[in-house]
Amino acid sequence: MNDDEFAQLGKDARAASKVLRQTDRATKDKALLAAAKAICANASAILAANAEDLKAARDLTAALRDRLMLDDKRVEAMAKGLEDIAALPDPVGRELARWQRPNGLDIARISTPIGVIGIVYESRPNVTADAGALCLKSGNAVILRGGSESLRSSAAIHAALVKGLRAAGLPEASIQLVPTTDRAAVGEMLKGLDGAIDLIIPRGGKSLVARVQEEARVPVLAHLEGICHVYIHAKADLAKARAIAVNAKMRRTGVCGAAETILIDRAILKSHGVPILEDLAKAGCEIRGDDAVRAAFPSAKAATEEDWRMEYLDAIVSVRAVDGIDDAIRHIETYGSQHTEAIVTEDTRAAEHFLAALDSAIVLWNASTQFADGGEFGMGAEIGIGTGKLHARGPVGVEQLTTFRYVVRGTGQIRP
Amino acid sequence: MNDDEFAQLGKDARAASKVLRQTDRATKDKALLAAAKAICANASAILAANAEDLKAARDLTAALRDRLMLDDKRVEAMAKGLEDIAALPDPVGRELARWQRPNGLDIARISTPIGVIGIVYESRPNVTADAGALCLKSGNAVILRGGSESLRSSAAIHAALVKGLRAAGLPEASIQLVPTTDRAAVGEMLKGLDGAIDLIIPRGGKSLVARVQEEARVPVLAHLEGICHVYIHAKADLAKARAIAVNAKMRRTGVCGAAETILIDRAILKSHGVPILEDLAKAGCEIRGDDAVRAAFPSAKAATEEDWRMEYLDAIVSVRAVDGIDDAIRHIETYGSQHTEAIVTEDTRAAEHFLAALDSAIVLWNASTQFADGGEFGMGAEIGIGTGKLHARGPVGVEQLTTFRYVVRGTGQIRP
Repeated sequence: MNDDEFAQLGKDARAASKVLRQTDRATKDKALLAAAKAICANASAILAANAEDLKAARDLTAALRDRLMLDDKRVEAMAKGLEDIAALPDPVGRELARWQRPNGLDIARISTPIGVIGIVYESRPNVTADAGALCLKSGNAVILRGGSESLRSSAAIHAALVKGLRAAGLPEASIQLVPTTDRAAVGEMLKGLDGAIDLIIPRGGKSLVARVQEEARVPVLAHLEGICHVYIHAKADLAKARAIAVNAKMRRTGVCGAAETILIDRAILKSHGVPILEDLAKAGCEIRGDDAVRAAFPSAKAATEEDWRMEYLDAIVSVRAVDGIDDAIRHIETYGSQHTEAIVTEDTRAAEHFLAALDSAIVLWNASTQFADGGEFGMGAEIGIGTGKLHARGPVGVEQLTTFRYVVRGTGQIRP
Repeated sequence: MNDDEFAQLGKDARAASKVLRQTDRATKDKALLAAAKAICANASAILAANAEDLKAARDLTAALRDRLMLDDKRVEAMAKGLEDIAALPDPVGRELARWQRPNGLDIARISTPIGVIGIVYESRPNVTADAGALCLKSGNAVILRGGSESLRSSAAIHAALVKGLRAAGLPEASIQLVPTTDRAAVGEMLKGLDGAIDLIIPRGGKSLVARVQEEARVPVLAHLEGICHVYIHAKADLAKARAIAVNAKMRRTGVCGAAETILIDRAILKSHGVPILEDLAKAGCEIRGDDAVRAAFPSAKAATEEDWRMEYLDAIVSVRAVDGIDDAIRHIETYGSQHTEAIVTEDTRAAEHFLAALDSAIVLWNASTQFADGGEFGMGAEIGIGTGKLHARGPVGVEQLTTFRYVVRGTGQIRP
């Protein structure tokens, strides 16, 4: 694509966003449901495109091939995802606050779409459907730039989304897919396409996110990393501690809310630590402990300083003995990524201290860190988890894809 | 300053921010009130420092000298500003939302400070006090980098703020002033001081803001420009239209909420347009009109295409005749900066159409655009007006200087 084509992409998105921000819920939902139907009706074309992508991508690792791969079940899940998003309440036009001023001015803060969102993602082709649908529901035009290895699959899915837009009479440019595998396309998007892009959301590994944060000249809503902790306090209930530790670490090791480090009060290393580590080892988890942990649980490997900073995303856990809650908090502040941390305790004061002291996007008491998820929060689908401080922290659902504006109604007021 | 000194600045701010985010309201207010007293007690030192700044700044224009200049009244106003900020409710720890999940999880969204804010500003030394106080009240540590021409004044004001911090037992690094006029200091801040800065807020002219947006590697909350419009609809009440047009343009021409363009329905160009333009001319405003406006009001100069894009910040107004509300909306979308726009009309349907159609941070019906101000919105003081789409639009007060986190309370839940 040349410069003019990129500029046109931006202009078309901007024009579509002006239509979308005033589109009512019924029309947006109609497009989403029609797109879901089109995905089912075109399942064989989508699978055929995916087979070509897989054929061309022989050099990928097994894990990456699995991410790229679609089958009947995954295509069905994509269509179901669109239906679920259609069922969500309209995030646009909500009255977030309203108040009157002494001079009679009536001020309302109203949710409104952000405008044009650029999404840069890697190999999972289903992001095409999820991200397209979440942006549409929130009234935003979106420019999607998927991984080059999944371009054929994404194009087939995108064609189904466009059918949905057409069925509802919405502009086709509401959801655009950059039709090139040229890496320069990402650079153009990060520069903002001449002011056409309001927000960039990267979805992918650390190196993609780092490139986006380095190069972007427009705001970025990014997920960096989830070094999540479970702290087993001296007053923890043993059964809860065992269940939460194993679930937080092992339910799915590859998600950002998976625990990477377990901190255990030194006083209960034998009573609680050993059974927890036995459970984890039985579940297939490699354990890396400090000296105290290895003394109590000799089969643990030695943890190094690096282990405390590692996002394993794998069946490995680092375990450290701590001297009480403030030592645990200090460890989390030093090594954590302010994503999600849990405390297990029956002591309310200790729990509230932990919940207040940590500045992580999500802090939990007696619950698994794997609840760090938009669906589990009741937000419906999510486009990811924000680890920055601005605009939205934690799960980013359709509400978080909106911004607000002020509507002020007067009767002729002028400012003294 | 060398690299190590910059890094230390960031580390000290980060350490202070950890204390501040858990500091209660009474302690923050104590620091603010003590700082207000210290400003009054040290007024002569502040004025002496300001006199030195003024002496060294002979090359400045009269307008810039006026911005730089402090007198007894301005020093008093600064102290009063700190007291007003102390009187605001605590923006930290508010429960923004709370809900229960079917599995029993209790989820609360709680406001929390952003962390460390970097503020880069130009010649007004009072920003040192305002910005320092707003950040303190919102529980953020702040690194201030004022204009080099006002460094002595800012240092004297900063000394008073530090006295306030000390009186309340808060870390002195809660409010730091970069003690150098080296332009490289701004560059270091924009790079984020090794991850220590969470947000940069530039306060100043277009060239400063442009530099910040180009160079910043951390999120920016910026005010770009306010090309604000007043649209006089065919059904406008003449008295309201005259009062609002003159107030919006002429109350203070240098503020961002000042109107720059007036749009008038062609049908009422004689009945409404002429008296409005007569009022403006009488108030000392230069009028630049399109052909229709000049035909009705011959003393108007000719407006060029550039005039529609100009933020005069001066006693000049561009005036255009439009063919109804959709033509007015089209003009504003084409030339506006999405800051603040007003419609004057007695027709409710027309007003609601205008309020819904425009994606500006603030839209008003029958009220002056000069209400675009945190104080007028009832937010207390403001650090500026955000013209971006993310995090906060419109007036940025203490609430907008917070972010949020999720506090989740469970009873042993694990994720299926």
